[in-house]
Amino acid sequence: MVDMMLHPKTQGPLAGLVVIDLTRILAGPYCTMTLGDLGARVVKVEMPTVGDDARQIGPFVDGDDGKKVSGYFFSINRNKESIALDLKIEGDRAIFEKLLDSADVLVENFSPGTMERLGYGWEQLHARRPSLILASISGFGQTGPYRTLPAYDIVVQAMGGVLSLTGESAERPTRVGISIGDIAAGMFGAIGIQAALLERARTREGKHVDVAMLDSQVALLENALVRYQVDGTVPGPIGSRHPSITPFGVFRAGEGHIALAAGNDRLFARTLEVLGLSHLLGDTRFADNDARCSHHAELKAALEEALDTLPADEWLTILTQAGVPCGPVNDVAAVAKDPQLHHRQMLVDLPVSSTRSLIIAGSPIKFHGDALAIVEPAPRLDQHRDALLRELGLNQA
Amino acid sequence: MVDMMLHPKTQGPLAGLVVIDLTRILAGPYCTMTLGDLGARVVKVEMPTVGDDARQIGPFVDGDDGKKVSGYFFSINRNKESIALDLKIEGDRAIFEKLLDSADVLVENFSPGTMERLGYGWEQLHARRPSLILASISGFGQTGPYRTLPAYDIVVQAMGGVLSLTGESAERPTRVGISIGDIAAGMFGAIGIQAALLERARTREGKHVDVAMLDSQVALLENALVRYQVDGTVPGPIGSRHPSITPFGVFRAGEGHIALAAGNDRLFARTLEVLGLSHLLGDTRFADNDARCSHHAELKAALEEALDTLPADEWLTILTQAGVPCGPVNDVAAVAKDPQLHHRQMLVDLPVSSTRSLIIAGSPIKFHGDALAIVEPAPRLDQHRDALLRELGLNQA
Repeated sequence: MVDMMLHPKTQGPLAGLVVIDLTRILAGPYCTMTLGDLGARVVKVEMPTVGDDARQIGPFVDGDDGKKVSGYFFSINRNKESIALDLKIEGDRAIFEKLLDSADVLVENFSPGTMERLGYGWEQLHARRPSLILASISGFGQTGPYRTLPAYDIVVQAMGGVLSLTGESAERPTRVGISIGDIAAGMFGAIGIQAALLERARTREGKHVDVAMLDSQVALLENALVRYQVDGTVPGPIGSRHPSITPFGVFRAGEGHIALAAGNDRLFARTLEVLGLSHLLGDTRFADNDARCSHHAELKAALEEALDTLPADEWLTILTQAGVPCGPVNDVAAVAKDPQLHHRQMLVDLPVSSTRSLIIAGSPIKFHGDALAIVEPAPRLDQHRDALLRELGLNQA
Repeated sequence: MVDMMLHPKTQGPLAGLVVIDLTRILAGPYCTMTLGDLGARVVKVEMPTVGDDARQIGPFVDGDDGKKVSGYFFSINRNKESIALDLKIEGDRAIFEKLLDSADVLVENFSPGTMERLGYGWEQLHARRPSLILASISGFGQTGPYRTLPAYDIVVQAMGGVLSLTGESAERPTRVGISIGDIAAGMFGAIGIQAALLERARTREGKHVDVAMLDSQVALLENALVRYQVDGTVPGPIGSRHPSITPFGVFRAGEGHIALAAGNDRLFARTLEVLGLSHLLGDTRFADNDARCSHHAELKAALEEALDTLPADEWLTILTQAGVPCGPVNDVAAVAKDPQLHHRQMLVDLPVSSTRSLIIAGSPIKFHGDALAIVEPAPRLDQHRDALLRELGLNQA
């Protein structure tokens, strides 16, 4: 009998690699989407009947088969194939293990311990296939006192300190309006997997990549930990301001708001000039960045009084011509129309049914200015079963 | 004469790789820090006298030489060496080119066009050293109508739509309290560089990686683009709530707040039970996730009325025991004390002078539960000049 293997793709920097994907919801799927965009072949293994839990999360659109399709799932599962397998059933385990025989990477985001209970813990997998890289993305990691606790985005945003830095007041906690708790872990997962692949090219051996959502939030804190230690005060939420660069935030104009970042003395002087505020140039309260940070409220009042005389879009034209970094506060509708984003192919239109398509975000990783090919919309549950079984020589037809 | 090269490091998954780093401030340095944490040797080339602009941004601590050390710079430049070179001076260019002869990767985040003006554009670099990977991180990318415009974190947070989703009201724009505009681009840069390294292992040829901060923001929008298209309304800021999962947010307890994520029917039922709200289980307003999203305000009021009877920390104990995903809203001081983060070695203490050390965030990428070695604190400007010149056989002493 011929030992039949999955053929990897041939286009993109990660061509040649096969990723088996057990992940659900967001952190794991974002990781495998990133690898798929780069050219890895991603085979998503989902629970029969229900599939990835994200398929049950709205907003929903009508699919061709009369079933609802989750737009949420659709956003983060392009360039993947789907097969439904129950890893507790013998026949399905045999298919899964045949898939693993072709795999370079296996990604999972179950609770720690689940893979071991399924018989697919690191030790077992490594014994079976020493070159396989296992990536585990979890709330708190595979080790430590919290390892078995469940976590979702809002929990790690809160526990990791990011939430404490966002908003206007600690009395009104504010979530980052995107699921940065999940997405950051998915991105660090992709970085860790690629590092393990680069190491494997030297050693021929796989590794177990262990990324926690909580750790990932802390890795995003940037200078907040140091500010706390140096200033001796606990950093809190400060609206649209930057904690240590001024002026750097959102300001109200005659109509609407503008984002403005005049972070050094040269840009600050130019901003004052453009706004007709040159008389403030010698003002000791605004003499350098440190002074401006100390007097941010007075500076904001002065800037907004000047900005009040024209609408935001006119100020943006004037400030841009003067070389001051600035931009509009775009809502999602404005983002969808932005000419730069269209030029960069960041808005990708994919069919969700025979009569409807949806725009999703493209990959931000360009090579020589070219966008990566995003050709396959997110799969229907089990869509690729027959093709995959045929390719593996397991076709039961 | 012996052709002397830089020796790469020998530990970590990216051992064997040399990265030359022209980056400043945050997006680029975050990218090269990530590569350095993973074992690449990172040589930071800085402008003489001033160095990386981040060295001028507070908070400041006293260094051994009587000069101020930027805690901001210190947070994001560990595991790097520093040499001061002016790329407009012939002798310094010769040293830089000697460094490039050892390089696998060159990372820069100048304005597009700057590298060409210096004589180090992609075409020139590729002709000189075909295996070199050039990574350019910029505000808007190397192509498109906005390519030459300056951008900083707040500008791309605003233009990319993330800011429009964060906060409580579009009238009070709220920045994500960390510099996600920079950091996301740095992370996508690291992913793109590693992908190019994996491709180079097959092709022997380098590529030009082109990552834009604006593109990176759009890549984080997750389902917001789809929600806009399906619902027909433009998503706005919604405080601590999740747009399509309920209950999933921060709730006020007797004392303090808790983050709670009871995102499916099973967890929701358990939450109601624990809070003594079982009578709401049959309530049609809360029958499934869609219904709960439609009636989120009523549900929040009911939950907070129940939560009001005990302090946050007591509820967290009770909910955790019941298996409901929840957690405290930690400020940075609480983060610094968290036992899980200590277990995961996410809080790394490094000397900033002979009398003082500072805790910075570790790498969230673990292999087999082990933390990557973060041994070298951020360098002083030009700290490694002599050692580097000696290693290259250029010692002028």
